[in-house]
Amino acid sequence: MEGLSDERGRMGARGIFITLEGADGCGKSTQAALLADALAARGRDVVRLREPGGTPISEKIRALLLDPANAEMAPECELLLYEASRAQLVRQVIEPALARGAVVLCDRYYDSTYAYQAGGRGLDETLVNRSNLLGSCGCVPDRTLVLDLDPAEAFARATAGGVDRMEAEGLAFQERVRGAYLRLAAGEPCRVHVVDASGKADEVTARLLAAVADLWE
Amino acid sequence: MEGLSDERGRMGARGIFITLEGADGCGKSTQAALLADALAARGRDVVRLREPGGTPISEKIRALLLDPANAEMAPECELLLYEASRAQLVRQVIEPALARGAVVLCDRYYDSTYAYQAGGRGLDETLVNRSNLLGSCGCVPDRTLVLDLDPAEAFARATAGGVDRMEAEGLAFQERVRGAYLRLAAGEPCRVHVVDASGKADEVTARLLAAVADLWE
Repeated sequence: MEGLSDERGRMGARGIFITLEGADGCGKSTQAALLADALAARGRDVVRLREPGGTPISEKIRALLLDPANAEMAPECELLLYEASRAQLVRQVIEPALARGAVVLCDRYYDSTYAYQAGGRGLDETLVNRSNLLGSCGCVPDRTLVLDLDPAEAFARATAGGVDRMEAEGLAFQERVRGAYLRLAAGEPCRVHVVDASGKADEVTARLLAAVADLWE
Repeated sequence: MEGLSDERGRMGARGIFITLEGADGCGKSTQAALLADALAARGRDVVRLREPGGTPISEKIRALLLDPANAEMAPECELLLYEASRAQLVRQVIEPALARGAVVLCDRYYDSTYAYQAGGRGLDETLVNRSNLLGSCGCVPDRTLVLDLDPAEAFARATAGGVDRMEAEGLAFQERVRGAYLRLAAGEPCRVHVVDASGKADEVTARLLAAVADLWE
């Protein structure tokens, strides 16, 4: 994602942009809420978001993406819908929040697209990276936290309450997703931190807080 | 759009892909029907499509794009939704139809994205061209017919029956769209032909038929 950091430099006084990532069932949604509460308790203005979604238009796109009735969706269409939803969220919510100095905490962002579309589905990496460049409108996270859990445990958790279109892909898919996240972290160690998601929820939250503490120094 | 013609070469026995373009009100929809009938009368297997739309998923995306309630849509989101709709149409309908040897006649395709998003809205041309490369999945028209009409006349026709979100942009916008189409035709004269859209409907159809006649030679 070369060239994107220029955009950030132009924004002047700027908040902090943190994204949470991981395979389905890793506890991301729970941890997003706990981390948001912990940061708010420390006096931060926290904006908590999830992808796909977060604006009225993005939520309509989310509904298209997650509806099992749309199983005939081509991989390229799926990829571009995620990017469309993301672009709306960046322009309408994330950029204005960062401009006023808020902490933006987003449950999934473009690394999910890499992990699921390139890693999980096997779409061409260059294609996915170019799409991410378009959909993110040049807005790069300051820190990306990958919640890492044994894929079999994560998959069992994710499918306990029923199966959506993504989860219907199965365990082998989720293992490819995890592999892609680990490659991302190896390639961008400053931005992408892998955090152990096993154990009690408050223990995981403590690890996440430790993994973003340097952003306020 | 370098590199796309390789994709076409790989398809072996292949139909003919014709796209119809032009500003709102140029008579495209009428001519698409007349041209389809004329080609069918000559014994061709004709598949008539329109963009955005043409598959159940693409039609849902179309509804999002044209709904005036979504006026807060960011330009990047709009661009990516058009591409998502296009990718689905290419993979689900256009490629299979061309593979069986049909004539695919599509009312709007990626040149509309160039003319409206780069020309009309002023989005970065490189960004739009990259998006078109993604959304078209490498499927390039054999011939693109631009129906050309005085912008004021086209605009009056387009707005006679009410105003959708696109048409609400006004006459100056439509003039920029026309300028972009003329630049495309100048840059790709073999593929993109400008056809005079004034006069009686059957006269225009005759001009369109003449502009595709070489494709069967």
